[in-house]
Amino acid sequence: MSGFRHVVLIEWAEGTTTSQQEEAAARLAELPGLIPEIRSYSVGGDAGIDEGNADFVIVGEFADQAAYETYRDHPAHRAVVGEYIRPFLARRAAIQYEL
Amino acid sequence: MSGFRHVVLIEWAEGTTTSQQEEAAARLAELPGLIPEIRSYSVGGDAGIDEGNADFVIVGEFADQAAYETYRDHPAHRAVVGEYIRPFLARRAAIQYEL
Repeated sequence: MSGFRHVVLIEWAEGTTTSQQEEAAARLAELPGLIPEIRSYSVGGDAGIDEGNADFVIVGEFADQAAYETYRDHPAHRAVVGEYIRPFLARRAAIQYEL
Repeated sequence: MSGFRHVVLIEWAEGTTTSQQEEAAARLAELPGLIPEIRSYSVGGDAGIDEGNADFVIVGEFADQAAYETYRDHPAHRAVVGEYIRPFLARRAAIQYEL
């Protein structure tokens, strides 16, 4: 199935509480209901089986690059990132690629 | 759909050639034919639209954690990582999570 995927791996800053992490996940999970360009959206915490992993992941799928850019620039997405992720962020790695 | 997802973001070392990157992608793409535990497998290079992104991504999906661990420890997977990825690796971020 063709499409466009956006992947983000996050390491939380030291001291970020479990409830702050859960709040971020909950807010992100609301975005598919607010941004119709999201075709599928999956967030989760590391399963804890391999050493040195990131803490949290976001995988979003879109019909194409333009749909991803609408999501990326959408006020609802920017608000969640600004309020629930960026303040608690130690490290972030991301990519977008054609499926 | 339940399952278990493995995500890796890679930054290639400076000087890694395009053909070395393509060879890594091609070898990885052979793994689903060699490791039946792989339910779906997607690799790709960054689309180049956002600043500061990783270069390359691997997203593998498995029925469960045990199937992922079979893949992780499989000789065919270890051979590809050892020969076509690790020698060219600048940075790696990874996670595994329940879908």
